Amino acid sequence: MNIKPLGDRVVVKPIEAEEVTKSGIVLPGTAKEKPQQGEVMAVGSGEYIDGKKVDLEVKVGDKVIYSKYAGTEVKLDDQEYLILRQNDILAIIE
Amino acid sequence: MNIKPLGDRVVVKPIEAEEVTKSGIVLPGTAKEKPQQGEVMAVGSGEYIDGKKVDLEVKVGDKVIYSKYAGTEVKLDDQEYLILRQNDILAIIE
Amino acid sequence: MNIKPLGDRVVVKPIEAEEVTKSGIVLPGTAKEKPQQGEVMAVGSGEYIDGKKVDLEVKVGDKVIYSKYAGTEVKLDDQEYLILRQNDILAIIE
Amino acid sequence: MNIKPLGDRVVVKPIEAEEVTKSGIVLPGTAKEKPQQGEVMAVGSGEYIDGKKVDLEVKVGDKVIYSKYAGTEVKLDDQEYLILRQNDILAIIE
Amino acid sequence: MNIKPLGDRVVVKPIEAEEVTKSGIVLPGTAKEKPQQGEVMAVGSGEYIDGKKVDLEVKVGDKVIYSKYAGTEVKLDDQEYLILRQNDILAIIE
Amino acid sequence: MNIKPLGDRVVVKPIEAEEVTKSGIVLPGTAKEKPQQGEVMAVGSGEYIDGKKVDLEVKVGDKVIYSKYAGTEVKLDDQEYLILRQNDILAIIE
Amino acid sequence: MNIKPLGDRVVVKPIEAEEVTKSGIVLPGTAKEKPQQGEVMAVGSGEYIDGKKVDLEVKVGDKVIYSKYAGTEVKLDDQEYLILRQNDILAIIE
Repeated sequence: MNIKPLGDRVVVKPIEAEEVTKSGIVLPGTAKEKPQQGEVMAVGSGEYIDGKKVDLEVKVGDKVIYSKYAGTEVKLDDQEYLILRQNDILAIIE
Repeated sequence: MNIKPLGDRVVVKPIEAEEVTKSGIVLPGTAKEKPQQGEVMAVGSGEYIDGKKVDLEVKVGDKVIYSKYAGTEVKLDDQEYLILRQNDILAIIE
Repeated sequence: MNIKPLGDRVVVKPIEAEEVTKSGIVLPGTAKEKPQQGEVMAVGSGEYIDGKKVDLEVKVGDKVIYSKYAGTEVKLDDQEYLILRQNDILAIIE
Repeated sequence: MNIKPLGDRVVVKPIEAEEVTKSGIVLPGTAKEKPQQGEVMAVGSGEYIDGKKVDLEVKVGDKVIYSKYAGTEVKLDDQEYLILRQNDILAIIE
Repeated sequence: MNIKPLGDRVVVKPIEAEEVTKSGIVLPGTAKEKPQQGEVMAVGSGEYIDGKKVDLEVKVGDKVIYSKYAGTEVKLDDQEYLILRQNDILAIIE
Repeated sequence: MNIKPLGDRVVVKPIEAEEVTKSGIVLPGTAKEKPQQGEVMAVGSGEYIDGKKVDLEVKVGDKVIYSKYAGTEVKLDDQEYLILRQNDILAIIE
Repeated sequence: MNIKPLGDRVVVKPIEAEEVTKSGIVLPGTAKEKPQQGEVMAVGSGEYIDGKKVDLEVKVGDKVIYSKYAGTEVKLDDQEYLILRQNDILAIIE
């Protein structure tokens, strides 16, 4: 992985809805057009909270659910990634 | 439960309006289409308030009333859940 | 009363305009459709102000005037209540 | 006076434009429909500024000019009052 | 002058465009309809910046340029004044 | 120069697009209608950052690039100036 | 390079989509009209975070991905540059 997100940003590789079904999670409705689940590929250096830099809560390898329409899509070596703020990540699936 | 919400987020399992009636609480109007009451299934690690992390006020197992249209719906093992910010939870029913 | 509001929220039982008239207070205009006066039934644990939790100014039993259209209505044992933020309460009537 | 405003709120008794003229102050334009001048009848407990509660600058009895359309009208014993935030008060007339 | 503005507010007596020309300053375009220059007649007690009250930068007697459409007009003894926040004052003309 | 801007404001004398070309800088598109480059003529007393007053980064004499449509135009002795907040200044040209 | 950006701003030289393909990165969709990738040419003096000035995370020479439509375009010696806030930079490509 050669993208280093800035600050509180996270690079996520979306997981297609089909794969999601196998792991027992199904996302509702328009999920087929736009998956809302992915794997964290890279995390930023942290976010500033009242002047102190705090590590992000998500780690590389985490499976996460994120807000629909959040973030910016980029393509790298023919794979699509999403650059999100950690705040757009709703939960980690364990 | 295998979803771990981030920060000040909470996973809630909505309670259908029928069940609500039995416990003596009836939600008005459009409540049948969209329940506003549920049970807390998982809570995030807490929220930052002026630089200090503070535990959430709701706990797993709490029955809560939440704002209509708040949060994001996800499906897990054929059960629908709602991921809300604690701020969208109005009250705990005891 | 079995609703415990969160944080700076308050549960209010609205007082109908007719009752209001008896106590000498009349609310203007559209007051009949939507009363703006009520009695506090439950108060939240307080609000955070610059990192410190501060008790709410209103207490259970206070008669209060609140902003029109503020808050969320819930029904409990056939009685309608309103869950408001303390900030939507304008004044206490003594 | 039996209304106790909350926090940084102030109860003002509007002064009709006619009275205003006598004291030498005339408010322009639409002032006749909605007076912008009144007398302070009650003040809240103060406002929080960076975590410290600070007394309001206006006192009971002050003649004040306030922003048009600010605040909420309430009727008490057949007299109309206005509940304003202190921030909606522009100036004290001495 | 018998108006005491609150907080960071300032009472300004607008200077008509004609007078402005004499002092060598001409305001562009719509300046004739609404002058943007005036003399400070009264200043508020100061503004709170991070919990400390700070004196205003403008003083009584200062000639100032202010933002178009800013503030509220009031009439006092047949003279029109403007009550502005100091933040709406762009510069002092010396 | 007899204008003293307040706080974080700066007085800039716009440089016409023709002059800009000579110095090797050309601004794109609509630059002819509204230049985005100018010389700093006066700076305010500084800006408050977390309660401390901090000197502005630009100095009198700096050539600066500023945001299109930012600021307020004033005319002084037949010369047009722009009063900007420092935050509307993008860069200094050295 | 003779542009010194202010504060948390950064001057970026956009990289055309063709060059991007060679380095193995392809930006999706409308990328041809507006590249979202560039090289940092100059960085500002830093940004204020809770009253302390903090160095920017990007350095001169970094290849960065930035938000579409962010920033302001300027032309210098026939080369187009973009002046962005660091917050509009999503990630560094290493």
